[in-house]
Amino acid sequence: MAVYTDVADEELSAFIATYDIGQLLSCKGIAEGVENSNYLLHTEGGYFILTLYEKRVNPNDLPFFLNLMQHLSSKDLSCPIPVAAQDGKLLSALAGRPAALVTFLDGMWVKRPKPEHCSELGRGMANLHVAGADFDMQRPNSLAVADWRPLFDQCSARADTVFPGLAAEIDKELTHLERVWPKGLPSGVIHADLFPDNVFFLSDKLSGLIDFYFACTDALAYDVAICLNAWCFEHDGAFNVTKARAMLNGYTKVRPLSGAEYEALPILARGSALRFLLTRLYDWLSVPEGALVTPKDPLEYLKKLRFHQDVDSIESYGLEP
Amino acid sequence: MAVYTDVADEELSAFIATYDIGQLLSCKGIAEGVENSNYLLHTEGGYFILTLYEKRVNPNDLPFFLNLMQHLSSKDLSCPIPVAAQDGKLLSALAGRPAALVTFLDGMWVKRPKPEHCSELGRGMANLHVAGADFDMQRPNSLAVADWRPLFDQCSARADTVFPGLAAEIDKELTHLERVWPKGLPSGVIHADLFPDNVFFLSDKLSGLIDFYFACTDALAYDVAICLNAWCFEHDGAFNVTKARAMLNGYTKVRPLSGAEYEALPILARGSALRFLLTRLYDWLSVPEGALVTPKDPLEYLKKLRFHQDVDSIESYGLEP
Repeated sequence: MAVYTDVADEELSAFIATYDIGQLLSCKGIAEGVENSNYLLHTEGGYFILTLYEKRVNPNDLPFFLNLMQHLSSKDLSCPIPVAAQDGKLLSALAGRPAALVTFLDGMWVKRPKPEHCSELGRGMANLHVAGADFDMQRPNSLAVADWRPLFDQCSARADTVFPGLAAEIDKELTHLERVWPKGLPSGVIHADLFPDNVFFLSDKLSGLIDFYFACTDALAYDVAICLNAWCFEHDGAFNVTKARAMLNGYTKVRPLSGAEYEALPILARGSALRFLLTRLYDWLSVPEGALVTPKDPLEYLKKLRFHQDVDSIESYGLEP
Repeated sequence: MAVYTDVADEELSAFIATYDIGQLLSCKGIAEGVENSNYLLHTEGGYFILTLYEKRVNPNDLPFFLNLMQHLSSKDLSCPIPVAAQDGKLLSALAGRPAALVTFLDGMWVKRPKPEHCSELGRGMANLHVAGADFDMQRPNSLAVADWRPLFDQCSARADTVFPGLAAEIDKELTHLERVWPKGLPSGVIHADLFPDNVFFLSDKLSGLIDFYFACTDALAYDVAICLNAWCFEHDGAFNVTKARAMLNGYTKVRPLSGAEYEALPILARGSALRFLLTRLYDWLSVPEGALVTPKDPLEYLKKLRFHQDVDSIESYGLEP
């Protein structure tokens, strides 16, 4: 939950007046999302989400994110659509922060996804990859394999305070992944953070994708690998092969995976597990005393990493070998 | 800000199905209010606020609050209207808590009220008092003069850790108020918590009152006294006589105050200041380490109390003597 920024009444009204959305009727802070401040606005023109970008988002990346959402929605992918101000710009400023207005998207995220949801997710993610194919902006993944070592260096000294032997285990895995990380896989726009809370459903049908603030240009199959981790493990840590099969089948009905992509999946899944293990570990060790946000457990991703280390064929993900 | 309770998907859907409001389309936790968990729902039937009542609210009081809102809205007072479930009941349960659904009310609260807002507030409060006149339920004020001493006893020992001499100052004031507290003033439904964040405006016109969870049966002029404190002091502690005059004139245009009510105002304002000083002091001393909610400063109300102690006529509130 997060609403970090207080906005003065007059400032908000002046901001709204730069858009063609009529008078402001209501503004409520939303207790969701941890990176940015989000407000649900009701104006004479409809319902909108106002986002103030807090310091974790690089302002230089915002044109990529906003143009991407606009591009995807023009390709009939359901996602929040950035609203242009009267000067035609998608990106503005409010309360000293970069700010943008997007359309309100109905739908709810599913706290306990079932295989049907995973199938829908697979389909939606493939639609995203296809719709993004002709997007003309690029953004390198700022949390790609080359970025993990510097991140690890910032928390390796205290890693063992979280779990004994963690530093050595990460170091070994990192060395392996740096050596074998696949190159030349089909690449394009990936969401890179397609966790359940970023995927909306209505009556068990996917109704939209949100939160494109990690989106980047990378191997498409890496997005699939992220979702194997984010959607296909149970709360007790067990891998649910039925969900994985449903997700992969949902995906490949829209965009078939190549042989090289199938083969790379276990390594990509290890990499994805390590990426979230590292960022969570960093957050865990960096959280100030008395902070409002409880960091997510890094060890959840250590368990996922270990699972994929034992995978030697896509059979483990529920597919025919 | 507060969303305390996590509601499971299936439980929420089952809850919504007991109302005639169509399918659930969206549910967002609102980062407002400190007492209860509030969610903004979008369903096929419109927009609603779902409230889960947390432990500070006595469940036995809920029928009073919900029936009051229904009564007031039937008298054309703009406030959230409780929605009855298919069984006709206004009060339900969700996630182990009492729960109710009310209509969504447009409007925004004003962080820095101007005299025009105070005038509107006065008018709206008087409309509330008039509309409540024939409400047939009663609820004694659970934070009335007789309740202050027991509250003080719970925090007197540590009061001086907040401000040296505070315990003695409160004790003296309490003894005085217990002796001179006015009796026999016109009584009825009061809101009892009509702070700026509970009063909605649209284009500087009052658009509605919310949060009736302190409403009770008490002296109507006590509500006015609460608002003298909540609306007519500047952030630097100065009393703004222009705002007080605007508020009182707005009120009396709808419901004239009697001579006894005018005369009682300074004492009622002292009592109201002491009531909020005591509850804030209690919260300040009770807040657990690392709590999510920052308690409000009790000393703000010590300053307000001292101001009213020096008032000997309603001239100080901007009115003709």
